[in-house]
Amino acid sequence: MNNNLDLIRQLSRSTPSRIVMLVIDGLGGLPHNGKTELEAAHTPKLDSLAAKSICGLSLPISLGITPGSAPGHLSLFGYDPVGCQIGRGVLEALGIDFHLVMGDVAARGNFCTLDNNGLVSDRRAGRIATDKSAELCQLLDGIEIDGVKAIVRPVKDHRLVVVFRGEGLSDELSDSDPQQTGVAPEKVASLSRDAKRTADVVNQFILKAKGLLAGHHPANMVLLRGFSRRPKLPTMADIYKLKPAAVASYPMYRGLAKVVGMEVLPTGATIEDELKTLEQNFGGYDFFFVHFKATDAAGEDGDFNRKVAALEHIDKVLPMLTGLKPDVTVVCGDHSTPAMLKGHSWHPVPLMIYSAYCRPDGVRQFSESACLAGGLGRLAAVDIMPLAMANALKLNKFGA
Amino acid sequence: MNNNLDLIRQLSRSTPSRIVMLVIDGLGGLPHNGKTELEAAHTPKLDSLAAKSICGLSLPISLGITPGSAPGHLSLFGYDPVGCQIGRGVLEALGIDFHLVMGDVAARGNFCTLDNNGLVSDRRAGRIATDKSAELCQLLDGIEIDGVKAIVRPVKDHRLVVVFRGEGLSDELSDSDPQQTGVAPEKVASLSRDAKRTADVVNQFILKAKGLLAGHHPANMVLLRGFSRRPKLPTMADIYKLKPAAVASYPMYRGLAKVVGMEVLPTGATIEDELKTLEQNFGGYDFFFVHFKATDAAGEDGDFNRKVAALEHIDKVLPMLTGLKPDVTVVCGDHSTPAMLKGHSWHPVPLMIYSAYCRPDGVRQFSESACLAGGLGRLAAVDIMPLAMANALKLNKFGA
Repeated sequence: MNNNLDLIRQLSRSTPSRIVMLVIDGLGGLPHNGKTELEAAHTPKLDSLAAKSICGLSLPISLGITPGSAPGHLSLFGYDPVGCQIGRGVLEALGIDFHLVMGDVAARGNFCTLDNNGLVSDRRAGRIATDKSAELCQLLDGIEIDGVKAIVRPVKDHRLVVVFRGEGLSDELSDSDPQQTGVAPEKVASLSRDAKRTADVVNQFILKAKGLLAGHHPANMVLLRGFSRRPKLPTMADIYKLKPAAVASYPMYRGLAKVVGMEVLPTGATIEDELKTLEQNFGGYDFFFVHFKATDAAGEDGDFNRKVAALEHIDKVLPMLTGLKPDVTVVCGDHSTPAMLKGHSWHPVPLMIYSAYCRPDGVRQFSESACLAGGLGRLAAVDIMPLAMANALKLNKFGA
Repeated sequence: MNNNLDLIRQLSRSTPSRIVMLVIDGLGGLPHNGKTELEAAHTPKLDSLAAKSICGLSLPISLGITPGSAPGHLSLFGYDPVGCQIGRGVLEALGIDFHLVMGDVAARGNFCTLDNNGLVSDRRAGRIATDKSAELCQLLDGIEIDGVKAIVRPVKDHRLVVVFRGEGLSDELSDSDPQQTGVAPEKVASLSRDAKRTADVVNQFILKAKGLLAGHHPANMVLLRGFSRRPKLPTMADIYKLKPAAVASYPMYRGLAKVVGMEVLPTGATIEDELKTLEQNFGGYDFFFVHFKATDAAGEDGDFNRKVAALEHIDKVLPMLTGLKPDVTVVCGDHSTPAMLKGHSWHPVPLMIYSAYCRPDGVRQFSESACLAGGLGRLAAVDIMPLAMANALKLNKFGA
C-alpha cells in the first residue's frame, strides 16, 4: 500500500453520496486516418458529459509501461499496481467464484493441442467450447500427488483453473505455457529453494493430465501459467469507508473486484444487463465499478471499426447510468488498446470526472486530443480514486 | 524533510536578490454562472503581471486532498506537508508570539458554554470579545498540578492557548473538544503509555478551570484540542540560505512563519499595513512572505461576491508590492476556498512566478482556466520555492 493510501485512509469518511466508475476497457487508441477510435466514434452523450466534467489523461502505471488488466484495474481502484501484484491464476480462480483458502496455489490453464512431435500446434485447442472444456476438467479434477490435491475447474472456452491444495506449497514457479507454437510445453521450474517440491508436484500433475487427455485431440494437453496465491490487500471498505459493488460480466474483472473487497453483483452478459443491475442495486451501495469489455476485445482483434461501434454502443446506453444521477461519475479506462497494435498499450487513457464540484475545464469532446487540454492534465491512475472521493465530499481536511 | 530539500540545501547560495511571495489565502475557487471568483473579478494588475510571468496551478498536497492552513503553507515554503505535521496548539501559541520552550505541550482552547446538564450548548461561548477572554485567561493562568504549570493566554475572541510546562510531559493526548454541541466535553485520554500522567494533569486542569469559570456564563468552560509540541524543522536560513521575513496580520500564519525560522515583522491589520511593512523592511531581508487573508475568509463564509471584492482589493494594492521591484515575485495560494463549498478544497491553485528569467508562457489572465495552459502546468506546491530560488539565481548548478 502506498503512502497516499494511508493518508486517504486517515481522511476518508462515510457519507450517503454515491460514486459510479465506468471502466471502458482498453478505452484509449491510436489514430487511423487522423482519428483514434474514440475520435472517429459519434459519441454525443460522452461529449456532453465531458463538457460539464473535468477531463484528463490517466497513466495506468508510468510512462511507457503497458499494463495487463490486473494492474490496470488496481490503479483505477487506487492501489499501487507495482506494489500489489496479483497472479493470473488467482484472478482466474476468483473470477469463477472459486473460494481460495490460505495456502492454495492457483494457475491459469489452457487446453491446447500437441502435434505428433509433442510440440504445441494450437495454444487454445481450437478454442473448444466451454461444455467440452468442463467435461475434460472433470477428467483431471481431484488428481492427488504427494498429499496435494489438484482442483480443476473450467472458465470459458479453452480456459481452466487449477488450484493446488495441500501443505507447504509455494507459488514461486515458472510457467509451463511457452506462449508460442512449434515448441514443446516448458517444464515448470522452481524459482526458489522452497518451491522445489511444488514444482515436482505440478510437473507430475501435468504428466498425468497429458496421459488422461491423450485421446481428446484437439484438447490433448494443458498449459499452466501465473502460479499465484491470493494477496492480502486492504479492502476498499478499509481504505475509503465505502460500501463498494462491482457490475462486471467477465470473470477476471469480478475476481479483481473481490480482491479489493467489492461485493460482486450477479449480472447478465451485456452492458444493458449490467446497467440494469446498477439501477436495481443503486440504493444499496455507495461505490459502483461498472465494466464494459467490448472496446478492449475489438482492439485486441485489431478491429478499428468494431471498436468504434463498441464506443458508440456505450455512448448510446450512457443515459441508463447518468439518469441515476450519481453524485460523482467517473468515465475511465484501465489502459489503451489501439486496434493498430492489436493489444494493450502504454498510451495514457481519456478520463472524465463529473460532480457538482469538479471545476469544468472547457473540454467539449471525450477524446484523446481533447482530454490533453483538460483540467486534470496527465495524472496517475491511482489518483483517480482520491479525486472521486474528494468530489463526493468523502474526504476530511488534512491538518489544521 | 524530503529529498528535494536536501538537494536544494546543497545548491542554495546567498545573493543580494530578493524574493517576495504573496500568498492569497484560499485563492482558488469554483465557477458560479461559468466563472470562478478569480475569473469574475476585475484584476487588471494581476493579469498584466501574469502576462509577463510563468503561470501554472499548484497542488498543495496531492490530488483530491484538501489541506488545512498549516500544511498548505508548509508546502509553499518547500516543506513536505505530510512529513512535517504541526499541531494546532503549537500553531496558536506561536501565533501569539508565545515562546515555547523544549518540552512544552500546547493546546488550542475555546471558551464555551455548558448548559445546566453539563452539555456543550455553544462551542464558542457566543464568540465573547477578546478583552473578556483575556480576563478569564488570567483566572486560569498559573494553575499548578503535580509540578506542571498551566500558562493560559488569550488569542482572539473566544480562542485561547494553554501551555503545560513541566518535566516529562507528552503530547499524545486526545481532544476534550467534542467538535459538536449537545454532548459533554470529552475526557482527555492518553494515546500512549507515556502520556498517562499528562492526561491526568490536563484533566485536573480542566476540572479546576470549570470550577473557576462556573459563574462566568456564557464562558463557563474551556475545550482543549490539538495538544502538540513544537516540531524541529530545518529553518529556511538552513535550507535556502535566505534571511526570510513574514508579513502577516493573522496569528496562525505568523506562527507558521516562526516554525520555519522566518522573522515575523510587526504589522497592522490591513493588507495596506502589511505592504507598508514590506516597503519599510525591504532592505533588510531577501525573502518575504506576505499573507492576505480576506479571500479565504469570504470563501469560508460562502460569500462569492465578497471573495471577488477581496481579489479586486489585492489587485488594486498590488503596485505597492511590484513597485518595490523584487527580483522574483511569486503570487500563489495555500489552497482553494470556493465560496460554493464554504471551506477549503482540493482544487489546484493559480500560481505565477515573475522574474527577468521566468520564460513567460502566453497566459494573459490570472485565473484557474488561463493558468491551466501555463508554462508550469500543474505542479506540486513544494516545488514553488525551488523555482523561486532558481529565478532569483540563488541555486548553484547540480553536478559537474
